[in-house]
Amino acid sequence: MLVTEIIRKKRDGKRLDADEIKAFIEGYTKGEIPDYQMSALLMAVFLRGLDDEELSAWTQAMLGSGRVIDLSHIKGQKVDKHSTGGVGDKISIPLAPVVASFGVKVPMISGRGLGHTGGTLDKLESIPGFDVRLSPERFVEAIEKVGVAMIGQTEDLAPADKKIYALRDSTATVESIPLISASIMSKKLCEGIQGLVLDVKVGSGAFMKTVRQAEKLAKTMVGIGKSAGVKTVAVLTCMDEPLGWAVGNALEIEESIEILKGTGPKDTTALVEELGAWMLVLGGVSRSKEEGKSMVRNAIKDGRGLSKFKEMVAFQGGDPLVADDISRLPKAKHSHDFCASRAGFVSKIDCEKVGLALCALGGGRKKKEDEIDPSVGFRVHKKLGAHCDEGEPLMTIYYNDKEKLEECFALLRESYVIGEKKPRKKPLVIGVIE
Amino acid sequence: MLVTEIIRKKRDGKRLDADEIKAFIEGYTKGEIPDYQMSALLMAVFLRGLDDEELSAWTQAMLGSGRVIDLSHIKGQKVDKHSTGGVGDKISIPLAPVVASFGVKVPMISGRGLGHTGGTLDKLESIPGFDVRLSPERFVEAIEKVGVAMIGQTEDLAPADKKIYALRDSTATVESIPLISASIMSKKLCEGIQGLVLDVKVGSGAFMKTVRQAEKLAKTMVGIGKSAGVKTVAVLTCMDEPLGWAVGNALEIEESIEILKGTGPKDTTALVEELGAWMLVLGGVSRSKEEGKSMVRNAIKDGRGLSKFKEMVAFQGGDPLVADDISRLPKAKHSHDFCASRAGFVSKIDCEKVGLALCALGGGRKKKEDEIDPSVGFRVHKKLGAHCDEGEPLMTIYYNDKEKLEECFALLRESYVIGEKKPRKKPLVIGVIE
Repeated sequence: MLVTEIIRKKRDGKRLDADEIKAFIEGYTKGEIPDYQMSALLMAVFLRGLDDEELSAWTQAMLGSGRVIDLSHIKGQKVDKHSTGGVGDKISIPLAPVVASFGVKVPMISGRGLGHTGGTLDKLESIPGFDVRLSPERFVEAIEKVGVAMIGQTEDLAPADKKIYALRDSTATVESIPLISASIMSKKLCEGIQGLVLDVKVGSGAFMKTVRQAEKLAKTMVGIGKSAGVKTVAVLTCMDEPLGWAVGNALEIEESIEILKGTGPKDTTALVEELGAWMLVLGGVSRSKEEGKSMVRNAIKDGRGLSKFKEMVAFQGGDPLVADDISRLPKAKHSHDFCASRAGFVSKIDCEKVGLALCALGGGRKKKEDEIDPSVGFRVHKKLGAHCDEGEPLMTIYYNDKEKLEECFALLRESYVIGEKKPRKKPLVIGVIE
Repeated sequence: MLVTEIIRKKRDGKRLDADEIKAFIEGYTKGEIPDYQMSALLMAVFLRGLDDEELSAWTQAMLGSGRVIDLSHIKGQKVDKHSTGGVGDKISIPLAPVVASFGVKVPMISGRGLGHTGGTLDKLESIPGFDVRLSPERFVEAIEKVGVAMIGQTEDLAPADKKIYALRDSTATVESIPLISASIMSKKLCEGIQGLVLDVKVGSGAFMKTVRQAEKLAKTMVGIGKSAGVKTVAVLTCMDEPLGWAVGNALEIEESIEILKGTGPKDTTALVEELGAWMLVLGGVSRSKEEGKSMVRNAIKDGRGLSKFKEMVAFQGGDPLVADDISRLPKAKHSHDFCASRAGFVSKIDCEKVGLALCALGGGRKKKEDEIDPSVGFRVHKKLGAHCDEGEPLMTIYYNDKEKLEECFALLRESYVIGEKKPRKKPLVIGVIE
């Protein structure tokens, strides 16, 4: 195999066969193919694309670059959910325990926040003691005993993806639907799952700004999942405003607990129902989405979800009492309202800027190496379409460092548009791709 | 300047401004920008192209990465010729002394052979003692005293080009007209010349197989030359058969001497006249191409060209007596005829294969590091359109190592097509782009 011949083929818009893709990705992971050849191939893929077969081979090669978790000895279907990332997206945290409470196993490997999007691991770490770095053996044990666990990616899972992702980041080859899809799917398929629900976000706070883009990404990922023999459903959901009321790590845990107690906001609760229903369907414990939804509602009503959440927190070394006493979560020292500059309707929220405003406070990462302050964040009072008077609080900002307020305020001011008329809102669930 | 932003811009098909190009190429040359970012940019350039302004900036940035030879104190116009490479292309060797004999200075920086194409430096080094590694000071002195010198590229001339060229070679980004043009032109423009004649080869032995491609390359290079203030003319010439009778380093020196003595083959002599005439026009010593041609003919007739050649050889440490006694050149131990397998007309010669057959004998380089045997090569007896009987020699092979003959024969057999009818030949000079 001549490395340059493979690059040349893709450069000229030709199909790569599975062996070529495998050899290239294996060679790169082992360090036999240098970064500069991979980056040339990545740019060629970015501009020329990958067809379904190539993409399937690419994903399998990334998957094959490391170990795949073996959960086959554990009873029950293993189903996971993945979100393409948004602002205030804490859905996994109430969702996974609810689904697990029905015997569907949820072996969730999550990510950290970067840029405007938050990360489930960061949120969980705001629970005192919570350990997202379980050993592979402990992770399998958690799935066996608790039925759910949430950990970070380990070195030996899809190492090709880690190496390629870092390279894409510095070679302007990130925003490629095939490369994004292969990256996500290789990380999920190594969990040893039989079902996967993808929450593909669309809107001002999502990577995909248009429904068309999101649909393309969703279809691509569903295709990869299916060709890998994993039942995959993608739900396109709206990300034009922060989800729920909480933006910020500990605050989002607080909201997650509220959801599990049945006192959560309408939108996040509805999303837990929608995605939970799909997971229960894929997990084979519900015959229809409607039945699944009502199962989720029941698990919230009767406290089974909350109880499974506490079990998971306890197993992973966290303080389960946070569920009963949110004052055990880190709390910011100060708060300050961000108020409307005029009366009217909230007609637009640039959700990405809200995410960046959280970064400005120290609650998110501008760079991968940044430390996070779990206590800071926002309570959103006025969402899209809400009426406000001049000077009325749109959000409350929870902060520790006064010096960081100014940048945060500036971003929030840019993010909110107050208009004369009540805006049209996209529905929360835009569509489903099976 | 964000490196990834520049890559992204080109990736998305946008124009890069001169500052961005300069910063990228400077940063890369200094080692501040790693190979993997440059290779991503190169692939983006390969697929998206560079417009005239970008290309001019790219070339200037490569030029600016090193020193430019200052010949301004030397009287007379400095004019060079560059060939895009072919088989049996020894034209520079008789051409430069002929032109220099009229007072036009020819500061020629040449290359080595790679793959099927030969290199002027390798040919010159078959002259015992000839030194192509003059110091910059000795080079300037040669131009001053002799009026012509032929040396290799030094470390400090267009170092960006050297580094980028090596990277292109291993990232499948070689065959790009903008990148080829910028590479050639940056190497030529640092010679401190006022005029440049480009011999753009077209055909089976050239990188450009079609007239259309060659025209595009020629126009691109002429554009770069003009925007750098250098009078530039490109002559498109036919490379469907080896030039002259000699293929191989010492043999090509022998043919060059014949040309200078007026006993050379018709085609190579005609090309020396054509290109020489243009150089004399650009050098301001001839008013028209026709006048230039007759000047070249005179310089051959009266021996001025040969005498300048000897002067150059002597200045560069070579044995000038080779011009009088070709037995002073290295000579292969054995010879063997390659004969026609049937009677007919030579209807096609895959000239690239003839070049590779020379490599097989050891007379060319498969890889950059390969050593060259200067004595081996071919004497071509039958060129395109010639009639041959069955068993009649098409070429004589001069070789040292019998083991290498088989591969050489196989390639030659593949290269020659004998047909029923006399083929149509392209004219030697296909067109001129000014």
